[in-house]
Amino acid sequence: MEKLKEAKKKLEELGKKILKDIEKGENPSIEIPIRALSNVVYDEKTGMLTLGKKSAKRYLFHVAHAKKFMQTLLVASFCKELITQNLHTSLRDLFYALKRTLPNSNENTFDEQRESDPIIVDLEVALDVLREQLHLNADVRGRVVGDVIIRDRGDRIDWSKLGSGGWAIPSNVEDIEFKKVNAKFVLVIEKNAAFERLHEDKFWKKHKCILLTTQGQAARGARRLIQRLATEFNLPVYVFTDADSYGWYIYSVIKYGSMSLAHVSDRLGTPTARFIGLTISDVDKFKLHNFTIKAKEVDIKRAKEMLKYPWFKHPAWQKELKLMIKRKIKAELEALSGRGLKFVTETYLPEKIKNQDFLP
Amino acid sequence: MEKLKEAKKKLEELGKKILKDIEKGENPSIEIPIRALSNVVYDEKTGMLTLGKKSAKRYLFHVAHAKKFMQTLLVASFCKELITQNLHTSLRDLFYALKRTLPNSNENTFDEQRESDPIIVDLEVALDVLREQLHLNADVRGRVVGDVIIRDRGDRIDWSKLGSGGWAIPSNVEDIEFKKVNAKFVLVIEKNAAFERLHEDKFWKKHKCILLTTQGQAARGARRLIQRLATEFNLPVYVFTDADSYGWYIYSVIKYGSMSLAHVSDRLGTPTARFIGLTISDVDKFKLHNFTIKAKEVDIKRAKEMLKYPWFKHPAWQKELKLMIKRKIKAELEALSGRGLKFVTETYLPEKIKNQDFLP
Repeated sequence: MEKLKEAKKKLEELGKKILKDIEKGENPSIEIPIRALSNVVYDEKTGMLTLGKKSAKRYLFHVAHAKKFMQTLLVASFCKELITQNLHTSLRDLFYALKRTLPNSNENTFDEQRESDPIIVDLEVALDVLREQLHLNADVRGRVVGDVIIRDRGDRIDWSKLGSGGWAIPSNVEDIEFKKVNAKFVLVIEKNAAFERLHEDKFWKKHKCILLTTQGQAARGARRLIQRLATEFNLPVYVFTDADSYGWYIYSVIKYGSMSLAHVSDRLGTPTARFIGLTISDVDKFKLHNFTIKAKEVDIKRAKEMLKYPWFKHPAWQKELKLMIKRKIKAELEALSGRGLKFVTETYLPEKIKNQDFLP
Repeated sequence: MEKLKEAKKKLEELGKKILKDIEKGENPSIEIPIRALSNVVYDEKTGMLTLGKKSAKRYLFHVAHAKKFMQTLLVASFCKELITQNLHTSLRDLFYALKRTLPNSNENTFDEQRESDPIIVDLEVALDVLREQLHLNADVRGRVVGDVIIRDRGDRIDWSKLGSGGWAIPSNVEDIEFKKVNAKFVLVIEKNAAFERLHEDKFWKKHKCILLTTQGQAARGARRLIQRLATEFNLPVYVFTDADSYGWYIYSVIKYGSMSLAHVSDRLGTPTARFIGLTISDVDKFKLHNFTIKAKEVDIKRAKEMLKYPWFKHPAWQKELKLMIKRKIKAELEALSGRGLKFVTETYLPEKIKNQDFLP
């Protein structure tokens, strides 16, 4: 609730600031930090990707700014209405709700959604709030099970009693209250198939953990949920992905944040997360040689780029990336099934956890 | 449970039949209905796509068949093990679990997953069972809410008490028991954003219905769940998609089945389903002119193909398809937000339902 009031207050302050500009006879302006890659920094202290200090002003009376200025205020005012009426909506709905022709003109407020989406990010950055606090829902993806009870929209939800399906992670997890969290760690799994396998074997019960699948690249709701579990309950987070550049990047986004959303890393990133596997070294360690796949050119190219990222500079990661490039192989989570369907639950994960065999 | 025993029995019968062939000194064979489009029929009586009567035999002693014969028996035997041990797995895991080099040879059982996937469908068709009955999980996608209580894997799950997330539909819904179904109809929604909007407005409570989003093309779990609700509880099913060829095809797959899975339409299709919108006529009826999008060449091409499908021959559908082709527009569910965020819950859907304004 606090968070929502904060967003509303910041929107109102933005409006008042513009009014004040007008009253003072000044050219009304909004200051917006620059989101270009040139302003994305890896902050070693916090261990997260973050925006640098460069920012730019957007003016009402400026030929190149006027339209964007109008759009920014339109979106800001719409979001204030959403919060006031306690409604949530999607980025696409916002676009349709604000799309119209300005009276006595041929000028449209917005012609395409790709005009309104960046304005929303501008507002996030300028006001230092999350899209979710503005009542805008992002993509949903991800499921979770474990011995956890939450309260959401007045419902008491027991994650341990949701059958084979689990709880569908919504786009907005800001208002979830945790009533009971009985877990020693969070296991984040890239792929749903592996999640279902572990869930069927009651891995979360036996190892007292929370199982969460991101179903590919983690959506904002899943990233925020992982962060809340890690920080509010001091839970270690282990991330389990394919051994390839795509899987490893999924891990890095959960941990450090992403380049395109660097301004919200502090609200979405989990710097304490560690990588449980798969690695290329696992192929030798767990005898998966018969179950690897040939890496494609694009995988190799991506791995070479990642070698240069400051947040992959740790020798352990450099070693894995170089191994992948040298041996030109990758391994999927399903490769573990080559050693038997229960190999992942009975051997691989327990050994990794027991030996604390993680990558940073 | 009955269904599972049935699949196991059929697998055993397949094995016994091969044994008998050998004992009689005959060339062991498996009869598999042909799955080519030439053998896909629209059955007007059942209102579903179905396989015709053509079939082919696969022999052990036949240069062109021997490898596939071996693969078919490998997959069949693996599935029997899955059922016996009560384990479930994915198509990809099955591939890895069966991939190996045959002793004293350079011959692999399978080199790529695209070899094992069709074998699984062969088995489905030959034995007339669902992949899910063979304990193979398909893709998961889809969420559901409503005044419904189910039992799944020993858990009692109340779909009305799952907060904003809803219940994540698993890939396998065969074993779900319905304990309470308090609903007058099922509303199936193509997009998650519209589902969240309706869920937030408590549409399912006000209109006593079950809300289900397929999140795009319906996965097998969602299709089977819709069918079970429709047939076991006699519930009308209304499908709500974008007004474009892709959205309408999603509807037709829920209703009639798909061409590639025609052999399981009777287990996945819901012929009583009706289409609640959006239609191109809705653009006029509900004044959505400012919120349509230009249809792309590929949309128009698809619509022209669909004009010829026997299951789109109803004059009402012919009219909509032709309108789309003529006016070269499409409309998304989010277009309704152009008329206000609550327009869909307070005006559009209630009017459509009150006037029974459905397409067949």
